[in-house]
Amino acid sequence: MKQADTILSGGTILTMDGQGTIIPNGALAITGDRITDLGPATEINTTYRANLTLDTTGKLIMPGLINAHSHAAMTHFRGLADDLELMDWLNNYIFPAEARFVDREFAYLGTLLACAEMIRSGTTTFCDMYIFEDEVARAAQISGMRCLVGEVLFDFPSPNAKTPQEGLDYTRYLLEKWGGDPLVDVVVEPHALYTCSENLLRQAASLAQEFRVPIGTHLLETRGERAQIRERCGKEPLALLEETGCLEQNFIAFHGVWLTEQEQDLLALKGSAVIHNPESNMKLASGIAPIPDILARGIAVGLGTDGCASNNNLDLFQEMDTTAKLHKVHRLDPTVMDAPSVLRLATCEGARALGLASRVGTLAPDMQADIITIDINKPHLTPLYNPYSHVVYAAGGADVDTVIIAGRIVMRARELLTIEVDSVLAQAREISERIAAGLGVRRGS
Amino acid sequence: MKQADTILSGGTILTMDGQGTIIPNGALAITGDRITDLGPATEINTTYRANLTLDTTGKLIMPGLINAHSHAAMTHFRGLADDLELMDWLNNYIFPAEARFVDREFAYLGTLLACAEMIRSGTTTFCDMYIFEDEVARAAQISGMRCLVGEVLFDFPSPNAKTPQEGLDYTRYLLEKWGGDPLVDVVVEPHALYTCSENLLRQAASLAQEFRVPIGTHLLETRGERAQIRERCGKEPLALLEETGCLEQNFIAFHGVWLTEQEQDLLALKGSAVIHNPESNMKLASGIAPIPDILARGIAVGLGTDGCASNNNLDLFQEMDTTAKLHKVHRLDPTVMDAPSVLRLATCEGARALGLASRVGTLAPDMQADIITIDINKPHLTPLYNPYSHVVYAAGGADVDTVIIAGRIVMRARELLTIEVDSVLAQAREISERIAAGLGVRRGS
Repeated sequence: MKQADTILSGGTILTMDGQGTIIPNGALAITGDRITDLGPATEINTTYRANLTLDTTGKLIMPGLINAHSHAAMTHFRGLADDLELMDWLNNYIFPAEARFVDREFAYLGTLLACAEMIRSGTTTFCDMYIFEDEVARAAQISGMRCLVGEVLFDFPSPNAKTPQEGLDYTRYLLEKWGGDPLVDVVVEPHALYTCSENLLRQAASLAQEFRVPIGTHLLETRGERAQIRERCGKEPLALLEETGCLEQNFIAFHGVWLTEQEQDLLALKGSAVIHNPESNMKLASGIAPIPDILARGIAVGLGTDGCASNNNLDLFQEMDTTAKLHKVHRLDPTVMDAPSVLRLATCEGARALGLASRVGTLAPDMQADIITIDINKPHLTPLYNPYSHVVYAAGGADVDTVIIAGRIVMRARELLTIEVDSVLAQAREISERIAAGLGVRRGS
Repeated sequence: MKQADTILSGGTILTMDGQGTIIPNGALAITGDRITDLGPATEINTTYRANLTLDTTGKLIMPGLINAHSHAAMTHFRGLADDLELMDWLNNYIFPAEARFVDREFAYLGTLLACAEMIRSGTTTFCDMYIFEDEVARAAQISGMRCLVGEVLFDFPSPNAKTPQEGLDYTRYLLEKWGGDPLVDVVVEPHALYTCSENLLRQAASLAQEFRVPIGTHLLETRGERAQIRERCGKEPLALLEETGCLEQNFIAFHGVWLTEQEQDLLALKGSAVIHNPESNMKLASGIAPIPDILARGIAVGLGTDGCASNNNLDLFQEMDTTAKLHKVHRLDPTVMDAPSVLRLATCEGARALGLASRVGTLAPDMQADIITIDINKPHLTPLYNPYSHVVYAAGGADVDTVIIAGRIVMRARELLTIEVDSVLAQAREISERIAAGLGVRRGS
């Protein structure tokens, strides 16, 4: 018998590999931070002995979900302001709240709250853009989550950087501090083409190239953005990205709602990725990204929740359900974005989009052990004909039972093992009191 | 001190009354099947003593949700076939499965499974259309749910009616059997204008008038339906409804996706209602109903899940979230369908649409005690600025803690008290084995 640390035994394994392999009555062995082996339970259980065996009979076992675009600490603003015109929302609520309340503690605690929510809804990796991202990495580390962190860069001051140069310096600090960390990666993140000078974009691109990390930015999220960029620098968005060198490494476009066919062609040619945030795009009335067209070009597409202020939760199961349904009704074609394709966006394709495909997004030997189990012994998940259909159309984050990241069990039978939830919730409530009082928001309760 | 049966004490009460009254630190007294009183906890607790006091501190208390269009027993087909062309889906999966497997037991058990799911996600009333609706009423009665049942009527035979006349006779039987029942109402339900003869529609309308109950039908769900109706009888859909007398009582249009402005005007004039089923309309790629326009005319609009084969769950929280977001992105206007308006559709407006507004949908003295509580002491529901926003955008069915229907506690702290869930799930799995084998469906696990 070979020795493993942990075995998940029983249940249906959705590997999300290239062949779409499903293993009924499967088992999976973990050693250290990696998957050692997986296969029929009878084989695995006669080949390996483990320190810990989790009985996963009757459950679905699949890769942890990948939230490819978040502003985690914005959990503090969940429900602060909804149903408003975008500029009213930004200028009268979000920007003033950020200018006044965001500091290191805010970023740390808001991210910890986000990690608690993400783990509880089956997310194991998130790619974040916000302020004080060192605190984001610290909170992710405490919670045991895998992350990519990127300090938001723009021309105007942030609570963490008085100048664009300070933002770049802080990003370099992140790259040097976290380089080589097993769970934390860094991404260079200029905010958007309408908030960053050409010079800032060029320096950001050069920093990403120097450290060989991805560069990501909000791109064509709203209908008016193209005109804004043209007015600002007289260039088309993609020309600006190309000229500043942004497309020369793993480029990640967050949103891409208003990408033309020609622009999609260029992104495909450059090996760039697009992150789809359907619920945020819907709630802010930004538009419907041409995801089926983007996928048809072979572009890697991930799914993101965006921040809590425009969603208002971090549940990727809802994001998957919405992705499948939104494009069907938009194209008046029920065959587009079928369940297996959508689940790929939240797992293996999301990993590819973020440059992590060799480590996560698929269950296979030697991959990182980022694994979730789903309890389907519930009325709304009975009967089961097709596990892909269940995950995308019927399940929710609350159905996630156990979460393992890099071989470490961070939630077991819905109990969070890495985060003291009650304390985090209490502290978050205190901060929200200050925000509500400071902004003069009448609270509903 | 006055005597009450049950008091819910503490928490924030969303009354959903005409003034949008919210009672912080509230309490609510129940006697028999009705709400006796509600107000600040200090007042209620010093006025009433109760046999049972539930501590609802820190929870949201609101009217139970109303699922205004369901085919409850289709839980048996959850995930049986997805992502298919509508006619492929209907002709090769749903219709053959129904012809072959639907019988009294199927209807009873499938509805019981649906009731378990609905109660667990905060629904207290559902309006159903299917076959063997006497079984649906029986299952609802066992589970303690409030319902409107309507046997589906059409020109061709169903497993329960060889002829249209048999369908009408069965509906009369339902009306006579359940008339006066405190929890079961009956609605006359011709399937659609493209499946019912003018004569059948006329007889259905006359039956509804005789018993003074609503009449409801699928109306303009898909883009092709208008042409189908024109071809079949040479008439416009609304003319056909008007001529057959269907608009002369509380008429309920399920879907109404392709209603013109003029048709909406007529429905408004007639005091008709429209039931919106956004997730089903999206998944089947039927289209986006013009709900903001319909609401602007004062038409009562309810929310429905439709059947599980096209959703694939019965969670009205998801339906609310989708309703708010879908219309925003469709109109490119983030201010349409704000959270309080959407919550009204699932409560007071849904009740108005079904003719139940004097009994349910609002928390007020003398109304039926159909009440749910939501546990917000969770990461994804923290912090709380606005309870409407939380219910619509952040919460899910799994956050419902306790459910009371007509004064009876049917779920407490997520434990179902009326349904033996394990036995229902086991029986549903057995039936699904037969369905999968019979249709030659390769099962995913």
